[in-house]
Amino acid sequence: MSELKAKNIYYLGPDGSNAHNAMLKFVESCNVIVENHIACKSIKTALEAIENDFDSICVLPIENSIEGIVRETIDNFLKFKDSSIRINGELTLPINHMLLSKTNNKTKITKVFSHPQALAQCGNFLYKNYPNVELKEVSSTSYAAQKVSFDNDETIAAIANETCAKLFNLNIIESNINDEKDNKTRFYILSRTNLFDGDINSKTAVILSTKNHSGALCDVLQILAKHKINLTCIDSRPSRKKLGEYMFFMELDGHETENKIKTALDELTNYVDFIRVLGSFKIYN
Amino acid sequence: MSELKAKNIYYLGPDGSNAHNAMLKFVESCNVIVENHIACKSIKTALEAIENDFDSICVLPIENSIEGIVRETIDNFLKFKDSSIRINGELTLPINHMLLSKTNNKTKITKVFSHPQALAQCGNFLYKNYPNVELKEVSSTSYAAQKVSFDNDETIAAIANETCAKLFNLNIIESNINDEKDNKTRFYILSRTNLFDGDINSKTAVILSTKNHSGALCDVLQILAKHKINLTCIDSRPSRKKLGEYMFFMELDGHETENKIKTALDELTNYVDFIRVLGSFKIYN
Repeated sequence: MSELKAKNIYYLGPDGSNAHNAMLKFVESCNVIVENHIACKSIKTALEAIENDFDSICVLPIENSIEGIVRETIDNFLKFKDSSIRINGELTLPINHMLLSKTNNKTKITKVFSHPQALAQCGNFLYKNYPNVELKEVSSTSYAAQKVSFDNDETIAAIANETCAKLFNLNIIESNINDEKDNKTRFYILSRTNLFDGDINSKTAVILSTKNHSGALCDVLQILAKHKINLTCIDSRPSRKKLGEYMFFMELDGHETENKIKTALDELTNYVDFIRVLGSFKIYN
Repeated sequence: MSELKAKNIYYLGPDGSNAHNAMLKFVESCNVIVENHIACKSIKTALEAIENDFDSICVLPIENSIEGIVRETIDNFLKFKDSSIRINGELTLPINHMLLSKTNNKTKITKVFSHPQALAQCGNFLYKNYPNVELKEVSSTSYAAQKVSFDNDETIAAIANETCAKLFNLNIIESNINDEKDNKTRFYILSRTNLFDGDINSKTAVILSTKNHSGALCDVLQILAKHKINLTCIDSRPSRKKLGEYMFFMELDGHETENKIKTALDELTNYVDFIRVLGSFKIYN
Protein backbone atom coordinates (compact mmCIF):
# COMPACT_ATOMS: atom_id res chain seq x y z
CA MET A 1 0.00 0.00 0.00
CA SER A 2 1.25 3.49 -0.84
CA GLU A 3 2.17 5.87 1.95
CA LEU A 4 -0.06 8.68 3.15
CA LYS A 5 1.51 11.81 4.57
CA ALA A 6 -0.06 14.40 6.87
CA LYS A 7 1.38 17.04 9.15
CA ASN A 8 -1.20 16.58 11.92
CA ILE A 9 -3.82 13.98 12.69
CA TYR A 10 -6.63 15.14 14.98
CA TYR A 11 -9.05 12.91 16.87
CA LEU A 12 -11.83 13.21 19.41
CA GLY A 13 -10.01 12.98 22.73
CA PRO A 14 -9.14 12.62 25.47
CA ASP A 15 -6.13 10.30 25.12
CA GLY A 16 -7.32 6.72 25.44
CA SER A 17 -10.72 7.45 23.81
CA ASN A 18 -12.10 5.05 21.20
CA ALA A 19 -11.36 7.66 18.50
CA HIS A 20 -7.75 7.65 19.73
CA ASN A 21 -7.71 3.86 19.25
CA ALA A 22 -9.27 4.21 15.79
CA MET A 23 -6.68 6.84 14.84
CA LEU A 24 -3.81 4.55 15.89
CA LYS A 25 -5.30 1.64 13.93
CA PHE A 26 -5.73 3.85 10.85
CA VAL A 27 -2.15 5.20 11.05
CA GLU A 28 -0.78 1.67 11.37
CA SER A 29 -2.88 -0.06 8.75
CA CYS A 30 -2.52 2.71 6.14
CA ASN A 31 1.16 3.49 6.77
CA VAL A 32 0.35 7.11 7.51
CA ILE A 33 3.48 9.25 8.01
CA VAL A 34 2.35 11.93 10.43
CA GLU A 35 4.21 14.42 12.64
CA ASN A 36 1.70 15.01 15.44
CA HIS A 37 -1.22 13.16 17.00
CA ILE A 38 -3.52 15.82 18.49
CA ALA A 39 -6.46 15.09 20.86
CA CYS A 40 -9.40 17.53 20.48
CA LYS A 41 -11.84 18.25 23.26
CA SER A 42 -14.93 18.13 21.03
CA ILE A 43 -16.12 17.09 17.56
CA LYS A 44 -16.54 20.79 16.73
CA THR A 45 -12.97 21.71 17.63
CA ALA A 46 -11.61 18.71 15.67
CA LEU A 47 -13.44 19.91 12.52
CA GLU A 48 -12.28 23.49 13.09
CA ALA A 49 -8.72 22.17 13.35
CA ILE A 50 -8.72 20.50 9.90
CA GLU A 51 -10.63 23.44 8.39
CA ASN A 52 -7.63 25.61 9.29
CA ASP A 53 -4.91 23.07 8.59
CA PHE A 54 -5.03 22.00 4.95
CA ASP A 55 -2.52 19.18 5.11
CA SER A 56 -4.13 17.29 7.97
CA ILE A 57 -6.51 14.44 8.81
CA CYS A 58 -9.19 14.00 11.45
CA VAL A 59 -10.78 10.85 12.95
CA LEU A 60 -14.32 11.14 14.36
CA PRO A 61 -16.97 8.60 15.42
CA ILE A 62 -20.03 8.38 13.14
CA GLU A 63 -22.01 5.35 14.38
CA ASN A 64 -22.15 2.88 17.24
CA SER A 65 -24.04 -0.41 16.97
CA ILE A 66 -25.89 0.22 20.27
CA GLU A 67 -26.31 4.01 20.41
CA GLY A 68 -26.82 4.73 16.70
CA ILE A 69 -25.56 7.59 14.53
CA VAL A 70 -23.34 10.16 16.26
CA ARG A 71 -25.52 13.18 15.56
CA GLU A 72 -22.90 15.62 16.80
CA THR A 73 -20.61 14.61 13.92
CA ILE A 74 -23.31 15.22 11.27
CA ASP A 75 -24.65 18.43 12.85
CA ASN A 76 -21.19 19.97 13.23
CA PHE A 77 -20.12 18.88 9.74
CA LEU A 78 -23.13 20.75 8.33
CA LYS A 79 -22.04 23.97 10.05
CA PHE A 80 -19.00 24.10 7.71
CA LYS A 81 -21.13 25.04 4.72
CA ASP A 82 -18.50 26.27 2.26
CA SER A 83 -15.70 24.06 3.46
CA SER A 84 -13.81 21.54 1.38
CA ILE A 85 -13.76 19.05 4.28
CA ARG A 86 -14.77 15.64 2.94
CA ILE A 87 -15.21 12.15 4.27
CA ASN A 88 -12.35 10.13 2.82
CA GLY A 89 -12.45 6.87 4.67
CA GLU A 90 -14.32 4.69 7.13
CA LEU A 91 -12.92 2.38 9.77
CA THR A 92 -14.83 0.11 12.17
CA LEU A 93 -13.51 -0.78 15.60
CA PRO A 94 -14.87 -3.44 17.97
CA ILE A 95 -15.57 -1.84 21.35
CA ASN A 96 -14.08 -4.06 24.01
CA HIS A 97 -14.98 -2.76 27.46
CA MET A 98 -12.51 -3.92 30.14
CA LEU A 99 -12.43 -3.66 33.90
CA LEU A 100 -9.15 -1.95 34.87
CA SER A 101 -7.64 -1.48 38.30
CA LYS A 102 -4.42 -1.10 40.28
CA THR A 103 -5.18 -4.44 41.88
CA ASN A 104 -5.41 -7.92 40.38
CA ASN A 105 -7.70 -9.07 43.15
CA LYS A 106 -11.32 -8.86 41.98
CA THR A 107 -12.73 -9.19 45.47
CA LYS A 108 -11.19 -5.88 46.57
CA ILE A 109 -13.29 -3.81 44.13
CA THR A 110 -16.04 -1.74 45.78
CA LYS A 111 -16.56 1.07 43.20
CA VAL A 112 -16.54 1.14 39.39
CA PHE A 113 -16.08 4.44 37.52
CA SER A 114 -16.94 5.04 33.85
CA HIS A 115 -18.93 7.05 31.32
CA PRO A 116 -22.72 6.43 31.78
CA GLN A 117 -22.95 4.71 28.35
CA ALA A 118 -20.16 2.27 29.22
CA LEU A 119 -21.72 1.52 32.63
CA ALA A 120 -25.07 0.91 30.91
CA GLN A 121 -23.48 -1.32 28.25
CA CYS A 122 -21.93 -3.52 30.97
CA GLY A 123 -24.92 -3.38 33.33
CA ASN A 124 -25.84 -7.10 33.26
CA PHE A 125 -22.23 -8.20 33.60
CA LEU A 126 -21.71 -5.98 36.65
CA TYR A 127 -25.04 -7.02 38.18
CA LYS A 128 -24.12 -10.72 37.89
CA ASN A 129 -20.44 -10.61 38.75
CA TYR A 130 -20.05 -7.54 40.97
CA PRO A 131 -23.51 -7.21 42.56
CA ASN A 132 -22.29 -5.10 45.48
CA VAL A 133 -20.11 -2.52 43.74
CA GLU A 134 -21.17 1.10 43.58
CA LEU A 135 -21.33 2.58 40.05
CA LYS A 136 -19.93 6.09 39.61
CA GLU A 137 -20.54 8.14 36.46
CA VAL A 138 -17.74 10.32 35.06
CA SER A 139 -17.30 12.29 31.81
CA SER A 140 -15.31 9.72 29.81
CA THR A 141 -13.92 6.18 30.03
CA SER A 142 -10.37 7.53 29.88
CA TYR A 143 -11.02 10.00 32.69
CA ALA A 144 -12.25 7.02 34.75
CA ALA A 145 -9.02 5.11 34.02
CA GLN A 146 -6.93 8.18 34.83
CA LYS A 147 -8.74 8.62 38.15
CA VAL A 148 -8.25 4.96 39.12
CA SER A 149 -4.56 5.26 38.28
CA PHE A 150 -3.88 8.59 40.05
CA ASP A 151 -5.97 7.83 43.17
CA ASN A 152 -3.81 4.74 43.71
CA ASP A 153 -6.71 3.09 45.56
CA GLU A 154 -7.00 -0.70 45.12
CA THR A 155 -10.72 -0.77 45.89
CA ILE A 156 -11.72 1.16 42.74
CA ALA A 157 -11.86 0.12 39.08
CA ALA A 158 -12.67 1.73 35.73
CA ILE A 159 -14.45 0.47 32.64
CA ALA A 160 -12.25 1.54 29.74
CA ASN A 161 -10.22 0.11 26.84
CA GLU A 162 -6.79 -1.48 26.33
CA THR A 163 -5.16 1.83 25.33
CA CYS A 164 -6.21 3.24 28.73
CA ALA A 165 -4.73 0.21 30.51
CA LYS A 166 -1.38 0.95 28.84
CA LEU A 167 -1.55 4.76 29.16
CA PHE A 168 -2.42 4.68 32.84
CA ASN A 169 -0.53 1.53 33.83
CA LEU A 170 -3.54 -0.47 35.04
CA ASN A 171 -4.21 -4.21 35.23
CA ILE A 172 -6.88 -5.72 32.99
CA ILE A 173 -9.04 -7.62 35.52
CA GLU A 174 -11.75 -8.56 33.04
CA SER A 175 -11.95 -8.23 29.25
CA ASN A 176 -14.90 -8.08 26.82
CA ILE A 177 -17.48 -7.38 29.53
CA ASN A 178 -20.04 -5.70 27.20
CA ASP A 179 -23.49 -7.25 27.56
CA GLU A 180 -23.94 -7.14 23.78
CA LYS A 181 -20.86 -8.71 22.30
CA ASP A 182 -21.15 -7.19 18.84
CA ASN A 183 -20.51 -3.65 20.07
CA LYS A 184 -18.76 -1.75 17.27
CA THR A 185 -18.11 1.87 16.38
CA ARG A 186 -17.57 3.24 12.86
CA PHE A 187 -15.26 6.20 12.42
CA TYR A 188 -14.88 8.67 9.57
CA ILE A 189 -11.47 9.72 8.26
CA LEU A 190 -11.91 13.36 7.18
CA SER A 191 -9.63 15.79 5.39
CA ARG A 192 -9.60 18.71 2.94
CA THR A 193 -7.34 16.83 0.52
CA ASN A 194 -8.32 13.72 -1.42
CA LEU A 195 -6.59 10.86 0.36
CA PHE A 196 -7.64 7.93 -1.81
CA ASP A 197 -8.63 7.23 -5.40
CA GLY A 198 -12.07 5.87 -6.23
CA ASP A 199 -12.42 2.25 -5.23
CA ILE A 200 -15.09 -0.35 -5.92
CA ASN A 201 -15.40 -0.87 -2.17
CA SER A 202 -16.69 2.65 -1.52
CA LYS A 203 -19.67 4.37 0.02
CA THR A 204 -21.06 7.85 -0.58
CA ALA A 205 -22.59 10.01 2.18
CA VAL A 206 -25.17 12.69 1.38
CA ILE A 207 -27.45 14.98 3.31
CA LEU A 208 -30.68 16.17 1.73
CA SER A 209 -33.96 17.80 2.55
CA THR A 210 -37.02 16.52 0.72
CA LYS A 211 -39.71 18.74 -0.72
CA ASN A 212 -42.50 19.48 1.70
CA HIS A 213 -45.25 17.09 0.59
CA SER A 214 -46.56 13.72 1.64
CA GLY A 215 -44.51 10.86 0.15
CA ALA A 216 -41.44 13.02 -0.57
CA LEU A 217 -39.04 10.62 1.16
CA CYS A 218 -40.65 7.74 -0.72
CA ASP A 219 -39.84 9.52 -4.03
CA VAL A 220 -36.18 9.77 -3.04
CA LEU A 221 -35.92 6.09 -2.06
CA GLN A 222 -37.68 5.03 -5.28
CA ILE A 223 -35.01 6.79 -7.36
CA LEU A 224 -32.28 4.96 -5.46
CA ALA A 225 -34.14 1.65 -5.91
CA LYS A 226 -34.62 2.31 -9.65
CA HIS A 227 -30.85 2.70 -10.09
CA LYS A 228 -30.23 -0.38 -7.91
CA ILE A 229 -28.37 1.69 -5.34
CA ASN A 230 -28.24 0.13 -1.89
CA LEU A 231 -29.03 2.50 0.98
CA THR A 232 -26.79 1.31 3.82
CA CYS A 233 -27.70 3.94 6.40
CA ILE A 234 -30.42 6.56 6.92
CA ASP A 235 -31.00 8.95 9.78
CA SER A 236 -33.22 11.99 10.10
CA ARG A 237 -32.05 15.31 11.53
CA PRO A 238 -34.30 18.26 12.33
CA SER A 239 -34.32 21.12 9.79
CA ARG A 240 -33.82 23.39 12.84
CA LYS A 241 -36.41 25.67 11.26
CA LYS A 242 -39.65 24.01 12.27
CA LEU A 243 -40.57 21.07 14.50
CA GLY A 244 -41.49 18.14 12.24
CA GLU A 245 -39.34 19.21 9.26
CA TYR A 246 -36.35 17.00 8.59
CA MET A 247 -33.16 16.58 6.67
CA PHE A 248 -31.96 13.06 5.89
CA PHE A 249 -28.45 11.75 6.25
CA MET A 250 -27.86 8.78 3.94
CA GLU A 251 -25.03 6.46 3.01
CA LEU A 252 -25.15 4.68 -0.35
CA ASP A 253 -23.07 1.80 -1.70
CA GLY A 254 -20.84 3.11 -4.50
CA HIS A 255 -18.51 5.99 -5.38
CA GLU A 256 -19.84 9.33 -6.62
CA THR A 257 -17.75 8.94 -9.81
CA GLU A 258 -19.68 5.76 -10.75
CA ASN A 259 -22.26 6.28 -13.46
CA LYS A 260 -25.27 4.97 -11.57
CA ILE A 261 -24.51 7.15 -8.55
CA LYS A 262 -23.92 10.23 -10.74
CA THR A 263 -27.20 9.66 -12.61
CA ALA A 264 -29.20 9.08 -9.43
CA LEU A 265 -27.76 12.17 -7.69
CA ASP A 266 -28.58 14.25 -10.80
CA GLU A 267 -32.13 12.92 -10.87
CA LEU A 268 -32.58 13.52 -7.13
CA THR A 269 -32.06 17.28 -7.55
CA ASN A 270 -35.60 17.39 -9.01
CA TYR A 271 -37.06 15.80 -5.89
CA VAL A 272 -35.22 17.60 -3.10
CA ASP A 273 -34.91 21.16 -1.85
CA PHE A 274 -31.26 20.69 -1.08
CA ILE A 275 -28.63 17.97 -1.46
CA ARG A 276 -24.96 17.91 -0.51
CA VAL A 277 -22.44 15.11 -1.01
CA LEU A 278 -20.32 14.83 2.13
CA GLY A 279 -17.82 12.53 0.47
CA SER A 280 -17.17 9.19 -1.20
CA PHE A 281 -15.03 7.04 0.96
CA LYS A 282 -13.03 3.87 1.15
CA ILE A 283 -13.90 1.21 3.70
CA TYR A 284 -11.15 -0.19 5.94
CA ASN A 285 -12.07 -3.05 8.19
CA MET B 1 -63.85 18.85 28.43
CA SER B 2 -64.35 15.81 30.63
CA GLU B 3 -62.16 15.27 33.65
CA LEU B 4 -59.23 12.87 33.73
CA LYS B 5 -58.28 11.23 37.00
CA ALA B 6 -54.95 9.69 37.96
CA LYS B 7 -53.36 8.82 41.27
CA ASN B 8 -49.84 9.86 40.30
CA ILE B 9 -48.36 11.78 37.41
CA TYR B 10 -44.66 11.15 36.77
CA TYR B 11 -42.34 13.33 34.69
CA LEU B 12 -38.68 13.55 33.79
CA GLY B 13 -37.23 15.72 36.54
CA PRO B 14 -35.71 17.52 38.26
CA ASP B 15 -38.30 20.06 39.36
CA GLY B 16 -38.27 22.98 36.95
CA SER B 17 -37.37 20.77 33.95
CA ASN B 18 -39.16 21.27 30.63
CA ALA B 19 -41.02 18.00 31.22
CA HIS B 20 -42.19 19.45 34.56
CA ASN B 21 -43.53 22.47 32.64
CA ALA B 22 -45.20 20.21 30.09
CA MET B 23 -46.81 18.16 32.88
CA LEU B 24 -48.24 21.30 34.51
CA LYS B 25 -49.59 22.51 31.16
CA PHE B 26 -51.20 19.12 30.51
CA VAL B 27 -52.78 18.94 33.98
CA GLU B 28 -54.20 22.43 33.57
CA SER B 29 -55.45 22.21 29.99
CA CYS B 30 -56.98 18.73 30.41
CA ASN B 31 -58.44 19.26 33.90
CA VAL B 32 -56.50 16.30 35.26
CA ILE B 33 -57.41 15.46 38.85
CA VAL B 34 -54.22 14.02 40.26
CA GLU B 35 -52.98 13.36 43.79
CA ASN B 36 -49.20 13.52 43.35
CA HIS B 37 -46.73 15.11 40.92
CA ILE B 38 -43.59 12.96 41.00
CA ALA B 39 -40.23 13.93 39.42
CA CYS B 40 -38.20 10.96 38.11
CA LYS B 41 -34.44 11.01 37.76
CA SER B 42 -34.39 9.33 34.34
CA ILE B 43 -36.64 8.33 31.44
CA LYS B 44 -36.12 4.69 32.42
CA THR B 45 -37.28 5.20 36.02
CA ALA B 46 -40.32 7.19 34.83
CA LEU B 47 -41.40 4.28 32.59
CA GLU B 48 -40.76 1.77 35.38
CA ALA B 49 -42.95 3.89 37.64
CA ILE B 50 -46.05 3.73 35.37
CA GLU B 51 -45.37 0.06 34.59
CA ASN B 52 -45.87 -0.64 38.30
CA ASP B 53 -48.63 1.88 38.94
CA PHE B 54 -51.65 1.09 36.77
CA ASP B 55 -53.68 4.18 37.49
CA SER B 56 -51.02 6.72 36.62
CA ILE B 57 -49.67 8.95 33.85
CA CYS B 58 -46.17 9.87 32.72
CA VAL B 59 -44.87 12.86 30.70
CA LEU B 60 -41.64 12.38 28.71
CA PRO B 61 -39.91 14.40 25.96
CA ILE B 62 -39.94 12.79 22.49
CA GLU B 63 -38.57 15.46 20.10
CA ASN B 64 -36.90 18.84 20.13
CA SER B 65 -36.82 21.06 17.04
CA ILE B 66 -33.04 21.60 17.34
CA GLU B 67 -31.75 18.32 18.81
CA GLY B 68 -34.14 15.88 17.12
CA ILE B 69 -35.84 12.75 18.45
CA VAL B 70 -35.16 11.88 22.11
CA ARG B 71 -33.69 8.44 21.48
CA GLU B 72 -33.65 7.57 25.16
CA THR B 73 -37.47 7.67 25.22
CA ILE B 74 -37.80 5.28 22.26
CA ASP B 75 -35.02 2.93 23.37
CA ASN B 76 -36.34 2.65 26.92
CA PHE B 77 -39.93 2.24 25.73
CA LEU B 78 -38.81 -0.75 23.64
CA LYS B 79 -37.33 -2.43 26.71
CA PHE B 80 -40.87 -2.87 28.09
CA LYS B 81 -41.72 -5.57 25.56
CA ASP B 82 -44.82 -7.08 27.10
CA SER B 83 -46.09 -3.97 28.78
CA SER B 84 -49.42 -2.30 28.19
CA ILE B 85 -47.81 1.17 28.36
CA ARG B 86 -49.12 3.20 25.41
CA ILE B 87 -48.69 6.69 24.07
CA ASN B 88 -51.99 8.45 24.73
CA GLY B 89 -51.30 12.07 23.97
CA GLU B 90 -48.85 14.59 22.60
CA LEU B 91 -48.19 18.10 23.77
CA THR B 92 -45.79 20.68 22.32
CA LEU B 93 -44.12 23.34 24.43
CA PRO B 94 -42.17 26.36 23.20
CA ILE B 95 -38.76 26.37 24.86
CA ASN B 96 -38.13 29.87 26.17
CA HIS B 97 -34.64 30.15 27.59
CA MET B 98 -34.32 32.96 30.15
CA LEU B 99 -31.42 34.50 31.99
CA LEU B 100 -32.15 34.28 35.73
CA SER B 101 -30.29 35.84 38.64
CA LYS B 102 -30.56 37.21 42.17
CA THR B 103 -29.72 40.63 40.77
CA ASN B 104 -31.62 42.84 38.33
CA ASN B 105 -28.45 44.56 37.24
CA LYS B 106 -27.17 42.95 34.03
CA THR B 107 -23.72 44.51 34.31
CA LYS B 108 -22.94 42.57 37.50
CA ILE B 109 -23.08 39.16 35.77
CA THR B 110 -19.68 37.50 35.31
CA LYS B 111 -20.62 33.81 35.06
CA VAL B 112 -23.55 31.98 33.43
CA PHE B 113 -24.43 28.40 34.47
CA SER B 114 -26.59 25.98 32.45
CA HIS B 115 -26.87 22.63 30.72
CA PRO B 116 -24.44 22.43 27.72
CA GLN B 117 -27.38 22.26 25.23
CA ALA B 118 -28.97 25.42 26.65
CA LEU B 119 -25.62 27.26 26.61
CA ALA B 120 -25.12 26.18 22.98
CA GLN B 121 -28.67 27.22 22.02
CA CYS B 122 -28.04 30.75 23.41
CA GLY B 123 -24.43 30.99 22.18
CA ASN B 124 -24.89 33.91 19.75
CA PHE B 125 -27.03 35.88 22.20
CA LEU B 126 -24.43 35.54 24.96
CA TYR B 127 -21.55 36.34 22.59
CA LYS B 128 -23.24 39.57 21.47
CA ASN B 129 -24.72 40.76 24.76
CA TYR B 130 -22.49 39.25 27.44
CA PRO B 131 -19.15 38.90 25.63
CA ASN B 132 -17.07 38.72 28.80
CA VAL B 133 -19.03 36.26 30.91
CA GLU B 134 -17.63 32.85 31.67
CA LEU B 135 -19.87 29.91 30.67
CA LYS B 136 -20.14 27.03 33.15
CA GLU B 137 -21.69 23.67 32.23
CA VAL B 138 -23.85 21.85 34.78
CA SER B 139 -26.11 18.77 34.59
CA SER B 140 -29.48 20.50 34.08
CA THR B 141 -31.02 23.96 33.63
CA SER B 142 -32.88 23.59 36.91
CA TYR B 143 -29.73 22.62 38.79
CA ALA B 144 -28.17 25.84 37.38
CA ALA B 145 -31.11 27.91 38.70
CA GLN B 146 -30.94 26.17 42.07
CA LYS B 147 -27.20 26.90 42.34
CA VAL B 148 -27.67 30.59 41.48
CA SER B 149 -30.41 30.82 44.09
CA PHE B 150 -28.61 28.96 46.90
CA ASP B 151 -25.18 30.57 46.32
CA ASN B 152 -26.81 33.97 46.82
CA ASP B 153 -24.10 35.54 44.64
CA GLU B 154 -25.23 38.51 42.49
CA THR B 155 -22.46 38.01 39.91
CA ILE B 156 -23.82 34.67 38.65
CA ALA B 157 -26.80 33.82 36.44
CA ALA B 158 -28.49 30.69 35.07
CA ILE B 159 -30.15 29.92 31.76
CA ALA B 160 -33.40 28.19 32.67
CA ASN B 161 -37.18 28.55 32.30
CA GLU B 162 -39.98 30.48 34.00
CA THR B 163 -40.87 27.61 36.36
CA CYS B 164 -37.30 27.72 37.69
CA ALA B 165 -37.55 31.49 38.23
CA LYS B 166 -40.62 30.88 40.41
CA LEU B 167 -39.31 27.74 42.17
CA PHE B 168 -35.99 29.33 43.09
CA ASN B 169 -37.14 32.91 43.53
CA LEU B 170 -34.95 34.46 40.83
CA ASN B 171 -35.35 37.57 38.66
CA ILE B 172 -35.89 37.17 34.93
CA ILE B 173 -33.16 39.44 33.52
CA GLU B 174 -33.72 38.45 29.88
CA SER B 175 -36.42 36.37 28.22
CA ASN B 176 -36.52 34.40 24.94
CA ILE B 177 -32.76 34.44 24.45
CA ASN B 178 -32.59 31.31 22.22
CA ASP B 179 -30.68 31.98 18.99
CA GLU B 180 -33.30 30.00 17.04
CA LYS B 181 -36.66 31.41 18.04
CA ASP B 182 -38.75 28.44 16.98
CA ASN B 183 -37.30 26.14 19.65
CA LYS B 184 -39.99 23.66 20.65
CA THR B 185 -40.16 20.31 22.41
CA ARG B 186 -42.84 17.67 21.92
CA PHE B 187 -43.83 15.49 24.88
CA TYR B 188 -45.63 12.17 25.05
CA ILE B 189 -48.38 11.50 27.60
CA LEU B 190 -48.06 7.81 28.45
CA SER B 191 -50.17 5.47 30.54
CA ARG B 192 -51.37 1.88 30.86
CA THR B 193 -55.00 2.91 30.65
CA ASN B 194 -56.70 4.43 27.63
CA LEU B 195 -57.05 8.13 28.45
CA PHE B 196 -58.87 9.38 25.35
CA ASP B 197 -61.21 8.08 22.70
CA GLY B 198 -60.17 8.01 19.05
CA ASP B 199 -60.12 11.48 17.54
CA ILE B 200 -59.71 12.72 13.98
CA ASN B 201 -56.78 14.83 15.15
CA SER B 202 -54.66 11.79 16.07
CA LYS B 203 -51.30 10.30 15.21
CA THR B 204 -50.09 6.71 15.47
CA ALA B 205 -46.54 5.76 16.46
CA VAL B 206 -44.99 2.47 15.34
CA ILE B 207 -41.60 0.84 15.46
CA LEU B 208 -40.67 -1.71 12.80
CA SER B 209 -37.71 -3.53 11.36
CA THR B 210 -37.67 -4.01 7.62
CA LYS B 211 -36.68 -7.22 5.91
CA ASN B 212 -32.98 -7.44 5.14
CA HIS B 213 -32.85 -6.60 1.43
CA SER B 214 -32.09 -3.57 -0.68
CA GLY B 215 -35.13 -1.29 -1.04
CA ALA B 216 -36.95 -2.72 2.01
CA LEU B 217 -37.61 0.71 3.55
CA CYS B 218 -38.83 1.94 0.15
CA ASP B 219 -41.41 -0.92 0.15
CA VAL B 220 -42.73 0.23 3.53
CA LEU B 221 -43.03 3.90 2.47
CA GLN B 222 -44.76 2.89 -0.78
CA ILE B 223 -47.49 1.09 1.19
CA LEU B 224 -48.06 4.20 3.30
CA ALA B 225 -48.14 6.37 0.16
CA LYS B 226 -50.57 3.97 -1.55
CA HIS B 227 -53.02 4.37 1.35
CA LYS B 228 -52.47 8.15 1.40
CA ILE B 229 -51.05 8.01 4.91
CA ASN B 230 -48.85 10.94 5.80
CA LEU B 231 -45.58 10.03 7.52
CA THR B 232 -44.97 12.91 9.94
CA CYS B 233 -41.81 11.61 11.59
CA ILE B 234 -39.17 8.95 10.90
CA ASP B 235 -36.02 8.07 12.77
CA SER B 236 -33.73 5.08 12.58
CA ARG B 237 -32.50 3.19 15.63
CA PRO B 238 -29.85 0.47 15.59
CA SER B 239 -31.10 -3.13 15.76
CA ARG B 240 -28.47 -3.58 18.52
CA LYS B 241 -27.62 -6.90 16.87
CA LYS B 242 -25.35 -5.80 14.04
CA LEU B 243 -23.82 -2.50 12.96
CA GLY B 244 -25.73 -1.24 9.91
CA GLU B 245 -29.03 -2.99 10.77
CA TYR B 246 -31.83 -0.68 11.80
CA MET B 247 -35.29 -0.41 13.23
CA PHE B 248 -37.47 2.53 12.21
CA PHE B 249 -39.56 4.68 14.50
CA MET B 250 -42.41 6.31 12.57
CA GLU B 251 -45.36 8.56 13.32
CA LEU B 252 -48.32 8.52 10.95
CA ASP B 253 -51.28 10.87 10.65
CA GLY B 254 -54.42 9.02 11.76
CA HIS B 255 -55.77 6.73 14.49
CA GLU B 256 -55.14 2.99 14.45
CA THR B 257 -58.89 2.37 14.50
CA GLU B 258 -59.30 4.18 11.14
CA ASN B 259 -59.77 1.87 8.18
CA LYS B 260 -56.87 3.12 6.08
CA ILE B 261 -54.43 2.81 8.99
CA LYS B 262 -55.72 -0.67 9.88
CA THR B 263 -55.39 -1.84 6.26
CA ALA B 264 -51.91 -0.37 5.85
CA LEU B 265 -50.65 -1.88 9.12
CA ASP B 266 -52.05 -5.27 8.07
CA GLU B 267 -50.37 -5.04 4.68
CA LEU B 268 -47.07 -3.95 6.25
CA THR B 269 -46.77 -7.23 8.17
CA ASN B 270 -45.80 -8.87 4.84
CA TYR B 271 -42.93 -6.43 4.36
CA VAL B 272 -41.42 -6.25 7.82
CA ASP B 273 -39.74 -8.64 10.24
CA PHE B 274 -41.39 -7.00 13.19
CA ILE B 275 -43.88 -4.19 13.82
CA ARG B 276 -45.31 -2.81 17.06
CA VAL B 277 -47.86 -0.04 17.52
CA LEU B 278 -46.71 2.17 20.41
CA GLY B 279 -50.01 3.99 20.57
CA SER B 280 -52.52 6.23 18.81
CA PHE B 281 -52.62 9.60 20.44
CA LYS B 282 -54.43 12.87 20.61
CA ILE B 283 -52.60 16.11 19.85
CA TYR B 284 -52.82 19.00 22.33
CA ASN B 285 -51.25 22.26 21.28
